Amino acid sequence: MSELTVGIDIGGTNTKLGIVDRGGKVVHQENIPTTDYEEFPHYFEAMAMALRNRQSSLPQGAKIIGIGVGAANGNYYTGNIEHATNLKWKGILPLAKMFEKEFNIPCILTNDANAAAVGEMIYGHARGMKDFIVITLGTGLGSGFVCGGILLNGHHGIAGELGHTSVNPTGRFCNCGKRGCLETYVSATGIKRTVYKLLADHLESSELRGISFDNLNTKMITEAAQRGDIVALACFEYTGRILGMKLAETVVHTDPEAIFLFGGLSLAGDLIFKPTIKHMEANLMPAFRGKVKILPSGLQNQIAPILGASSLVWDYFDKKETAR
Amino acid sequence: MSELTVGIDIGGTNTKLGIVDRGGKVVHQENIPTTDYEEFPHYFEAMAMALRNRQSSLPQGAKIIGIGVGAANGNYYTGNIEHATNLKWKGILPLAKMFEKEFNIPCILTNDANAAAVGEMIYGHARGMKDFIVITLGTGLGSGFVCGGILLNGHHGIAGELGHTSVNPTGRFCNCGKRGCLETYVSATGIKRTVYKLLADHLESSELRGISFDNLNTKMITEAAQRGDIVALACFEYTGRILGMKLAETVVHTDPEAIFLFGGLSLAGDLIFKPTIKHMEANLMPAFRGKVKILPSGLQNQIAPILGASSLVWDYFDKKETAR
Repeated sequence: MSELTVGIDIGGTNTKLGIVDRGGKVVHQENIPTTDYEEFPHYFEAMAMALRNRQSSLPQGAKIIGIGVGAANGNYYTGNIEHATNLKWKGILPLAKMFEKEFNIPCILTNDANAAAVGEMIYGHARGMKDFIVITLGTGLGSGFVCGGILLNGHHGIAGELGHTSVNPTGRFCNCGKRGCLETYVSATGIKRTVYKLLADHLESSELRGISFDNLNTKMITEAAQRGDIVALACFEYTGRILGMKLAETVVHTDPEAIFLFGGLSLAGDLIFKPTIKHMEANLMPAFRGKVKILPSGLQNQIAPILGASSLVWDYFDKKETAR
Repeated sequence: MSELTVGIDIGGTNTKLGIVDRGGKVVHQENIPTTDYEEFPHYFEAMAMALRNRQSSLPQGAKIIGIGVGAANGNYYTGNIEHATNLKWKGILPLAKMFEKEFNIPCILTNDANAAAVGEMIYGHARGMKDFIVITLGTGLGSGFVCGGILLNGHHGIAGELGHTSVNPTGRFCNCGKRGCLETYVSATGIKRTVYKLLADHLESSELRGISFDNLNTKMITEAAQRGDIVALACFEYTGRILGMKLAETVVHTDPEAIFLFGGLSLAGDLIFKPTIKHMEANLMPAFRGKVKILPSGLQNQIAPILGASSLVWDYFDKKETAR
């Protein structure tokens, strides 16, 4: 019998739902607009209906064994989405329990960066690694830690919030309420803020002077840098320097084999990797120098969030098997 | 039959060796001066002889089941002391293998702060906790992380070097070769440096102006602060502020239930705990506020290093039992 898992990635705008086999092949995929539903139960029902429809048309002998969900503010221990800032439904949303009741199979929920880390371990470049970190560079900066082959959840289920370590206590305002958090510098939004800071501070001409803040995106900054735009190049150096300095701090905490960069900003290649590696090495405690790899994620595509979420189920059953 | 373990704490000056029962009672203890031996094999033979003598006079039915060793630069994976800066024997010292060959029982070696963390879990205030951190405040600042009930060793066996996170990249010179490392501010040596900095910067009279750097110690600074000395009080505020700020960074990495402070500086009680807690909370990402306890170690006495080292053996056998 062929076993399948469901991977659901809940984003503020869109929800991606996929059915995935053990090899990481997405055999079915659909999108559900997250913002279309005023009430959470209606949103849940839309996901459940999509799954029921699919379940009834699976090939002979195929079976869905579990549901994995990645969501901002997802808590692994409770299976709840807790006080999400990117969703319109407030408070505690007991999503894992609702899926388990509806389908009578395990549902594993965690935050999206943790899902990305498990995805990297099951399908990506971290296969065979036991100690690594995944940094997701999107609107914000998320992180997932795997230590000794196990996803680090922490006591309250909220480990791995590197985006809210401090770069400058009197620096840029952050959504979390603090100032100078790492994600205000290193993320799609962070590098935009850096473009505007550099345009404000300096006199150099730049093609980025013609683009409004609202219209600017990482791809434009990357392409400008590739064309030699001096401000865009300086932005990547600035961003990589801060990321490298902070990763040097993180390395001495958990001593990973590798750190994977995932998401839009990481697609800029050498533009972001070179300064990050250089400044991490320069700031590392000597005992760690030359030992920790900074690598691109092995899941750099549209289906990565689905794979990450679905991998939670495989990981759950693998661990259960080992414990036997 | 009563089972016993050996705990050995290797310090730069003194080596403490003890035989410990499961309840944490030290049934025998002796000291071996680390500096008395020019050659490492002679030092090893002195420890082995002490153990053999003791082994032959154990009560009927008692048996030593393993040896735990805590040492700076001890690597859990290799069982070696690697390039220790506080010992006269250079290079790689394969201590665990030597003990195992000599006594035919398991020898578990790790760095002294990791041993303290396992000791806290087996005998101290972390009993029953699965996610916590121990910070050892001695000549330097060491740290041991327990995540999900397991000591975090990392990929290269050197996880938990919080003493070498950065407070100020252009700050105080550190033994590791960098500048501004946390342990240059927060440790017995760090607070002495702070006394001298504040005496240099300010005009206030202080009883500490009469003491040379070489003669000054944490106890004197603590007692001066307890008598209301304005400079000594400012030193604790300064030290606690830096420790609290940095612990706020550490918390968002591994999300612990508690952080234990161990060693001389932690004996100053409220003088160090109050500013540390205040500044940790002020710098924490809001989702973590009010959730993480800062507590004194439950092993605040002379035999703590022996207990910490011996606990490695109990932990080793406990984990083996669970895996069965």
